[in-house]
Amino acid sequence: MSELRREPIVGRWVIVHTPKDSLGPKDFPPAEHVQHQAAICQFCSGKEHQTPGEIEAVRLDGSAPNTPGWTVRVIPNKFPALRIEGDLNKRGIGIFDMSNGVGAHEVVVETPDHGKQFADLSVEEMLEVLSKYQSRYVSLAGDQRFKYILIFKNFGESAGATVEHTHSQVIALPMIPKYVREEIEGAKQYHNYRGRCVFCDIIHQEYQEKERIVTENAEFIAFCPYVPRYAFETWLFPKRHNSDFGQLSREDLSHLAKILKELLGRIKTCLANPSYNFFLHLAPVNFETDESYHWHIEIIPKLTEVAGFEWGTGFYIVPTDPGLAARHLKTVNYTA
Amino acid sequence: MSELRREPIVGRWVIVHTPKDSLGPKDFPPAEHVQHQAAICQFCSGKEHQTPGEIEAVRLDGSAPNTPGWTVRVIPNKFPALRIEGDLNKRGIGIFDMSNGVGAHEVVVETPDHGKQFADLSVEEMLEVLSKYQSRYVSLAGDQRFKYILIFKNFGESAGATVEHTHSQVIALPMIPKYVREEIEGAKQYHNYRGRCVFCDIIHQEYQEKERIVTENAEFIAFCPYVPRYAFETWLFPKRHNSDFGQLSREDLSHLAKILKELLGRIKTCLANPSYNFFLHLAPVNFETDESYHWHIEIIPKLTEVAGFEWGTGFYIVPTDPGLAARHLKTVNYTA
Repeated sequence: MSELRREPIVGRWVIVHTPKDSLGPKDFPPAEHVQHQAAICQFCSGKEHQTPGEIEAVRLDGSAPNTPGWTVRVIPNKFPALRIEGDLNKRGIGIFDMSNGVGAHEVVVETPDHGKQFADLSVEEMLEVLSKYQSRYVSLAGDQRFKYILIFKNFGESAGATVEHTHSQVIALPMIPKYVREEIEGAKQYHNYRGRCVFCDIIHQEYQEKERIVTENAEFIAFCPYVPRYAFETWLFPKRHNSDFGQLSREDLSHLAKILKELLGRIKTCLANPSYNFFLHLAPVNFETDESYHWHIEIIPKLTEVAGFEWGTGFYIVPTDPGLAARHLKTVNYTA
Repeated sequence: MSELRREPIVGRWVIVHTPKDSLGPKDFPPAEHVQHQAAICQFCSGKEHQTPGEIEAVRLDGSAPNTPGWTVRVIPNKFPALRIEGDLNKRGIGIFDMSNGVGAHEVVVETPDHGKQFADLSVEEMLEVLSKYQSRYVSLAGDQRFKYILIFKNFGESAGATVEHTHSQVIALPMIPKYVREEIEGAKQYHNYRGRCVFCDIIHQEYQEKERIVTENAEFIAFCPYVPRYAFETWLFPKRHNSDFGQLSREDLSHLAKILKELLGRIKTCLANPSYNFFLHLAPVNFETDESYHWHIEIIPKLTEVAGFEWGTGFYIVPTDPGLAARHLKTVNYTA
């Protein structure tokens, strides 16, 4: 059996299986993460000269740029989807609109150690990665051409990772992408109508119902949303309304590192080390915004193939009830 | 290098690589389609009693329902995403809306032969399959609860097919899915503003530019759209404005079978038998519509994993220019 559910932000309808007919963690095949290409990896320590020159790095030992000694390293993507140089030059081609591919595409190498997964970093190491996310967000926002900074991670081949060495990506876009814009507009409409943040209301309801909460700490809460798009999809929110990721204190980032590490550890243990994607949903930059947005992180384990049905309609079939997913993630035998 | 492109229907922005930086057919790994489970397949001839009772079938020999002798067979999905029984019972759960999972979920088994792929059916066999699509569309539209009939095919494991034996699926939904609604509304707005069909205008522009047209016949045209979401994505349209798939004559369906077979054959040859999805974009049913919609089929070879970036934003990176894709598909050594 299943239910039809509609989320209140962009109006997406979803089919969700009831607990009785839900798949459990054991019903999915585990993904493989081959880690055997260290010999040719350009993200490893000692290969700094093989990548474009670094933009930022964490170097606790005071070592020189583009040499070993770093713990986190931000470099331009060697094969960028967008280029930093040039004007947008928007124009029409018949009935179509187009512009040049201006933007930025950077890689955050999260550790010099080829054999480590992101979930295996220490809280301190993860904090440095999050801190780089923040500084790149703030820095790229300084370029007036950019309207949106997307920060995301693909882990595992079936989640789209093409390089084994653990890394995340930062893309600066000269416009606000469609789904993001819809989410922002949905939040704004809700706020105009009710005078409240839609995400705060969702968090409030999660607290009332309790069953979908996976974990929380002083500043953050993680839950499997009532209307997911994917099995075991998990959302991570600042508990208090917060529209600006760029303004987080180091202490806030430390709380975030703690809960993110725990959450990824639970997902790894519970779902046999699956491939996954996560992305930061942040407020647009250089754009007239109000305070109605509430930034957050969405984590999507890659457990099934997305089929024609989903692609064709935006109408997702979710084979696991989120309450059940949360219970699995919460009760799995995980110790930090 | 790449370009940013925006399609005029729902307003989706896309990054498209220029021809120089595009991947060619040889750059993708071929997908595997293991066809070795005939012994346990419930879709094979002789196993009719193992499936739910058939809804429709093509039986040229006058054989009885649920016995061998069929060439195309429509059955209820054994594990349906939606159930045909019951009321919608729409209601609110806090700030969420929900309703019961009422709908229909059917399977069209396209041939009794386990070893055959859809692309290998004869034009006559494919015509019978399309004819079943049409009769199911018309029949399900007779149920006033349904608002949208989605007809699609997943071929190959990485495109989401979980049963090897070639088949397609029909899902009747009690609401119009998000992307579909956006497409319909976009087409309607364009029509209101300009007095013309947006799809007719796109076809007109494809004719003027020529380079993205893959093939055509008397009634249909296939091209790689200027703003695709995926590499080698191909759209198939009736040349003349046509808003009602249900009204197509058998002769029209025959033209459609011919071009669909050719197109899938070209994709199979050109891209080393890839996994793919196709779906019919049809007008909603039991819904106030005008004639502005123009039904069509979208075919998406599954060549790369969809990554966090696409999922998070609806902002797709397409690694192959559609003009180049069309040239590859057009010039590949294919004979019917």
